[in-house]
Amino acid sequence: MAMSEVLRVGIAGVGTVGAAVVRLLARQADALASRTGRKIVVAAVSARDPEKERDANLRGVEFFADPVELATSPKIDLFVELIGGAEGSARASVTAALAHGKSVVTANKALLAAHGLELAELAEEKRVALAFEASVAGGIPIVKTLREGLAGNSIDRVYGILNGTCNYILSRMEREQLSFEECLAEAQRLGYAEADPSFDIGGFDSAHKLSILTALAFGVRIAPEAIDIEGIEHVSLADIEAAGELGFRIKLLGVAQRTADGVEQRVHPTMVRKSSAIAGAMGVLNAVTIDADAVHELTLVGPGAGGEATASAVVADIADIAKGVRSAPFGAPTATLAELVRAPLQRHEGGYYIRLSVPDVPGAFAGLATRMAERGISLESIMQHGARSDLEQPGAAAPKGGEDGQRSVILITHATSEHLVREALQAIYDDGVIRAPAQVIRIERK
Amino acid sequence: MAMSEVLRVGIAGVGTVGAAVVRLLARQADALASRTGRKIVVAAVSARDPEKERDANLRGVEFFADPVELATSPKIDLFVELIGGAEGSARASVTAALAHGKSVVTANKALLAAHGLELAELAEEKRVALAFEASVAGGIPIVKTLREGLAGNSIDRVYGILNGTCNYILSRMEREQLSFEECLAEAQRLGYAEADPSFDIGGFDSAHKLSILTALAFGVRIAPEAIDIEGIEHVSLADIEAAGELGFRIKLLGVAQRTADGVEQRVHPTMVRKSSAIAGAMGVLNAVTIDADAVHELTLVGPGAGGEATASAVVADIADIAKGVRSAPFGAPTATLAELVRAPLQRHEGGYYIRLSVPDVPGAFAGLATRMAERGISLESIMQHGARSDLEQPGAAAPKGGEDGQRSVILITHATSEHLVREALQAIYDDGVIRAPAQVIRIERK
Repeated sequence: MAMSEVLRVGIAGVGTVGAAVVRLLARQADALASRTGRKIVVAAVSARDPEKERDANLRGVEFFADPVELATSPKIDLFVELIGGAEGSARASVTAALAHGKSVVTANKALLAAHGLELAELAEEKRVALAFEASVAGGIPIVKTLREGLAGNSIDRVYGILNGTCNYILSRMEREQLSFEECLAEAQRLGYAEADPSFDIGGFDSAHKLSILTALAFGVRIAPEAIDIEGIEHVSLADIEAAGELGFRIKLLGVAQRTADGVEQRVHPTMVRKSSAIAGAMGVLNAVTIDADAVHELTLVGPGAGGEATASAVVADIADIAKGVRSAPFGAPTATLAELVRAPLQRHEGGYYIRLSVPDVPGAFAGLATRMAERGISLESIMQHGARSDLEQPGAAAPKGGEDGQRSVILITHATSEHLVREALQAIYDDGVIRAPAQVIRIERK
Repeated sequence: MAMSEVLRVGIAGVGTVGAAVVRLLARQADALASRTGRKIVVAAVSARDPEKERDANLRGVEFFADPVELATSPKIDLFVELIGGAEGSARASVTAALAHGKSVVTANKALLAAHGLELAELAEEKRVALAFEASVAGGIPIVKTLREGLAGNSIDRVYGILNGTCNYILSRMEREQLSFEECLAEAQRLGYAEADPSFDIGGFDSAHKLSILTALAFGVRIAPEAIDIEGIEHVSLADIEAAGELGFRIKLLGVAQRTADGVEQRVHPTMVRKSSAIAGAMGVLNAVTIDADAVHELTLVGPGAGGEATASAVVADIADIAKGVRSAPFGAPTATLAELVRAPLQRHEGGYYIRLSVPDVPGAFAGLATRMAERGISLESIMQHGARSDLEQPGAAAPKGGEDGQRSVILITHATSEHLVREALQAIYDDGVIRAPAQVIRIERK
């Protein structure tokens, strides 16, 4: 990118986020010029429909129909990609901009998860920036924190609430004692969830974001295929209530952890202590906690989505680029990033929440406890709950025995490993003690 | 600073933080070289006693008796000041290093509060860096977040727990139901509080840090003299318990807020909602929340002190400088920072917690309520507490009337302004309704 007094920005995709970027750049024009030493102007945009009404002043801004043409135009110095999607015009335009020696700012986690490494290598080769603060956790400056703020640390674990839709649903279920289905429908009504919500609630969006955090935190190559993913579809109100009674809250977490066997990456519903900083992030908020050797524990909580919050991250990247800051996109040069060795999930160690229905007959519980003890699984607490036939009447006292002679039993184990838990449950199932699969939710150690 | 392949660091002050910086630079040597493109070595240090046993490997590192001599030595490229204090050798050595064209990293909030602007101007004139991430909130990257991460935002308010000693004491009081004096003595025993604790518990340390955050957040000149300061000495266990019953927690906050009348800066015990992110920061943790137009609300929680946590911030600054990043120390060039216009504290608006002892006779409460109503102060809740003669017996039931025929009454007001509250209390006092000054604690709106 030729350094000139004015930094001419081209934005591809002028939806909610794009319009907010245009507004922020105008609103903060003087402050940004003072901070970066350069005037930053939106010189051109690309959007499908140039005539569409937009919540941003685009007078005098040139329209391009083709984002690739915008990306390579001599009229811009920096290309902002807000199209979305791992392929198609997003990938083509980002690649073209970098190839033409223009720095790129993107909010596109799918693109980064799929092609981040090759794009980073291209950016390094061309000595331009590829910045993506907005791609993870919206307005939270987590990329900058991992890449720069914690440069003196060796990071052990990074985990967080990376999807606002899931967090909204789980928060509503807890606060209003509503079912998953009711909360999902409400989220869709409010525009927090897509018509097809599976990408969010299935954990795939969180996984894309986690893969980016993993690369930044551990200096490894992005490996979204090495993530064990479980969504929130099977979290019931019974689980949320039981968690609450035990001092926990259920969150969909993305967790990346350095282990002796490699890097463990997983996305799944998790029990976190209510007293933890991450548990306090309710509704559409995101939160990320980093465990590192020097700083010990650091948590950032803020908006994970929304036009202006995401634009805040985009503009911060633009400002860094205007100042001439050139970090390797993933901190260290891409060629030096190690291949990610996937730790087997079965070795995950920690406590477990297990909810199962056992027959209300003498000896049933003893049989269950024996199978656990045989595998050295010790129990921290045991709670009997009514079978959740009372779910339809929130506030009704939970009966101690279910209608069908089944009792809901909740076990909290001390730290053990996943395969032992799975083995014990299989044995209990084989014994005929339980008739339905148990609900198992991991407890994230503080 | 001449760019050379190796970045030679000189460290003045090799106590807990200095030794940790040496350790981190060694431990992360490869990662830092990869991230910054340069080898970073500790070339020389200065310390009072070169023979002292230190928890860091200083073999081959040159010792200087005089920090100013170290600061100006041709043997170093970057000077790290960890001496402390606003004047003396800290100020002299930092000034000398900058004057000699060397970048400086410092953790010294007192120096910055007193002389930060003149040092920043010198750094800008010499085109070198003056970095001070470690000066506020230890390992939390709050300086970077304000200066870079939120560059696209206009900030409305920044507030936080900036002193770990006070937070430790308040947390212990709440958790263990101990008096302020007991917790202070314990903090001193554990090394969390100085023998003379007045600098911490009186709020002065928080004020130094707040003055730095204010300059970064609002683009104004540092003005520590324009801070209203109140310490935690008068927070009683009765207040903490009453706060808890009302869903609040008491924290010593530093608050800087943009108002129509200027910038309001204050340090005082504050009631924050238990559900807020900042309320969850217990013990020696620090936490900072930023309200800004685009990102809405962002909170960072982490260690506010400790050798390695503070060193984490120092090393992050060193890494940025090694990469060649040169921001103006306070974001915008110092010459462009506006003079801080001090907003009158009396205009602070918000809710108030008021605890007063009223005689246990008919009409006393009515008299009190009338004086409030006359000034348009409406009450959100009213709570009667026993006079705290039961403080010596934690767990004892609070009597509803005190021994001396006094009742402790707690009022929570809706948003009102400080001067109205003070006026009402004066009128109540003049009426003879109360005999002792009321305890007044501000409630920070979420």
